[in-house]
Amino acid sequence: MTEEIPATNLSIQSLVKEAGELDLSLAAQPMPEPKDHEVLVRVQATPINPSDLFLLLAGADISAAKTGSRDGLPVIHAPIPQAAMRAMGGRVGQAMPVGNEGSGVVVKAGGSPEAQALLGKTVAMLGGAMYAQYRCLPAQMCMAMPDGTDPRDAASCFVNPLTALGFVETAKAEGHGAIIHTAAASNLGQMLNRICIADGIPLVNIVRKPEQVELLKAQGAKHVLDSSAADYMDGLIAAIADTGATLAFDAIGGGKQGGQILGAMEAVAAKAMKEYNRYGSDTFKQLYIYGALDLSPTVFNRTFGFKWSISGWLLPNFLAAAGAETAQRMRARVAAELTTTFASHYSHEISLEQVLDLPTIAAYDAKRTGEKYLIRP
Amino acid sequence: MTEEIPATNLSIQSLVKEAGELDLSLAAQPMPEPKDHEVLVRVQATPINPSDLFLLLAGADISAAKTGSRDGLPVIHAPIPQAAMRAMGGRVGQAMPVGNEGSGVVVKAGGSPEAQALLGKTVAMLGGAMYAQYRCLPAQMCMAMPDGTDPRDAASCFVNPLTALGFVETAKAEGHGAIIHTAAASNLGQMLNRICIADGIPLVNIVRKPEQVELLKAQGAKHVLDSSAADYMDGLIAAIADTGATLAFDAIGGGKQGGQILGAMEAVAAKAMKEYNRYGSDTFKQLYIYGALDLSPTVFNRTFGFKWSISGWLLPNFLAAAGAETAQRMRARVAAELTTTFASHYSHEISLEQVLDLPTIAAYDAKRTGEKYLIRP
Repeated sequence: MTEEIPATNLSIQSLVKEAGELDLSLAAQPMPEPKDHEVLVRVQATPINPSDLFLLLAGADISAAKTGSRDGLPVIHAPIPQAAMRAMGGRVGQAMPVGNEGSGVVVKAGGSPEAQALLGKTVAMLGGAMYAQYRCLPAQMCMAMPDGTDPRDAASCFVNPLTALGFVETAKAEGHGAIIHTAAASNLGQMLNRICIADGIPLVNIVRKPEQVELLKAQGAKHVLDSSAADYMDGLIAAIADTGATLAFDAIGGGKQGGQILGAMEAVAAKAMKEYNRYGSDTFKQLYIYGALDLSPTVFNRTFGFKWSISGWLLPNFLAAAGAETAQRMRARVAAELTTTFASHYSHEISLEQVLDLPTIAAYDAKRTGEKYLIRP
Repeated sequence: MTEEIPATNLSIQSLVKEAGELDLSLAAQPMPEPKDHEVLVRVQATPINPSDLFLLLAGADISAAKTGSRDGLPVIHAPIPQAAMRAMGGRVGQAMPVGNEGSGVVVKAGGSPEAQALLGKTVAMLGGAMYAQYRCLPAQMCMAMPDGTDPRDAASCFVNPLTALGFVETAKAEGHGAIIHTAAASNLGQMLNRICIADGIPLVNIVRKPEQVELLKAQGAKHVLDSSAADYMDGLIAAIADTGATLAFDAIGGGKQGGQILGAMEAVAAKAMKEYNRYGSDTFKQLYIYGALDLSPTVFNRTFGFKWSISGWLLPNFLAAAGAETAQRMRARVAAELTTTFASHYSHEISLEQVLDLPTIAAYDAKRTGEKYLIRP
């Protein structure tokens, strides 16, 4: 297996300029040479996850974007609102590569035995800078796939699978017997549904459209609620009463939904109280916000007593706190169940150039459930 | 010491009716007879704390209240908005006594030695139903005061002092070296300021008016910020940089201030980072909401990464979790420093009847910092 490797490597670069402008480009850089412990991977598939979008687009106003070119390669310029600029801090003036995870074939390897062992293999990768033709990285950041693995199946081995497993681990560690999940028809939500069915953990799925109810029910989900339905709150309260859920993971972030979930938990807890207590129930209720499908402010009425917490949840923070043994156990399960429990589905496949196409950006930035973009460099 | 005890006891009763109406009255009930372990206390002073107001007024619209009378005693009827009714659950149809804490003189005692030991003493009491002429309660719920204690000094021995000490205990238990406090010119805020000065804990006081800055500075506070000032956020960021505060206690609850505090903590943490991280800093930031001076929804932009938590904080929950030894240590400190660290100030003294006076209700329900009402039954 010797394939010809070009002298330059094309990759997506996201640059935030001091003046409040996004400069998003396809750029040519010298092909990296793998060091002793490294491998060079020809990237074959890399997903656009919601967690990639903020780094890629930097909160810029794409509707006001202009296209251009530099060194014969496409560039996009778009204004960044002042509020978004405040969060940019350390990245201003620095071109950032993008893409959390991906898959590809190892075309060159350093001298170490671990690196050499991967030569010619299809691997799943985690570690950023995946929106590129080639990615050079340490062998230990690759997970070798069985021969014949479709690169599409190996593209999303880390972010969604480990997040879904992380929710279940968090529930166990913090003593919650059931889970509520929003945006539950997503690839991540479908994985979580399969894990919870397999592990016997009651799950309340909240989706945003009637057709998504059918999708999850067809996959064996017991509790699926459509937040656009008139009887949503009644259904949510009934599902919480049935499952005893006191923990929720929210992908949406903005708006009132998170607070409504805590309110529904409190309504169930209050019903079980023998005596009125103006300070609410004794039941501890936890909402974790792990995504930002809605970028608007989080808004909640504090109608759920005083025993509650709303917190951020992030996979790297969870893994750091959980420790190496738990992380290893989770990865082993992903590898074993990659095409079953942890299967991903993509609605669109696009090229690296198309990542910079304005109508395409508008489409993938909409983050519609059921629409998932896979880049095939 | 034998004083004549009337046959009936007047007390404030707050009744929420099914139809969405508050019935707030002064009612006569038979004078209770102390059991073996109990004492009967003639109530001399009892404060209106923000934590009493929700039980007292039940979120009713006092601007639409009507006055009346029943059995020759005053009654107020006021409509309760539907949203507030949802939180009433278990109290509908049940007349509730009001008043968390107070002080008075023991006029009758049960046969037990503990009860007899209190006869004739001035005591501080915790346990509800203090808005009354007399209160019958277990001797162990009383704290005997030195002879000659002014009942005004003993009226607020529990709620504010233990809350202020509870904040400091929480900071220590959760590993935070400094504290931010909102509505910091309150009686509670002034106590916290004195505790933090005595114990050497950096404190950032946030107030809502320029004159409150002077008040706290005159009491030795180093960091006092006026949230109405144009340079408030800059000042807050500078104070956090100086103190390293990653913990805040918020009395306000509604609006944007809590989120702004977390944002300021993150701004300080981000400056110390060597590399840009789109997910924010590694610094854990905690906001506790313990009050509701602003009943409007809590609103926050999630511009502070993923390592944060916003939680409810309530004194009884804290004491239950902290354990008996800590609670005893806290009470002993309050008793020892009652007229110094834990001194309270009252702007108005009113009678039980005046608790039902509509203009007076409007005034104490406004919860203005610097205005504190003491009932003298």
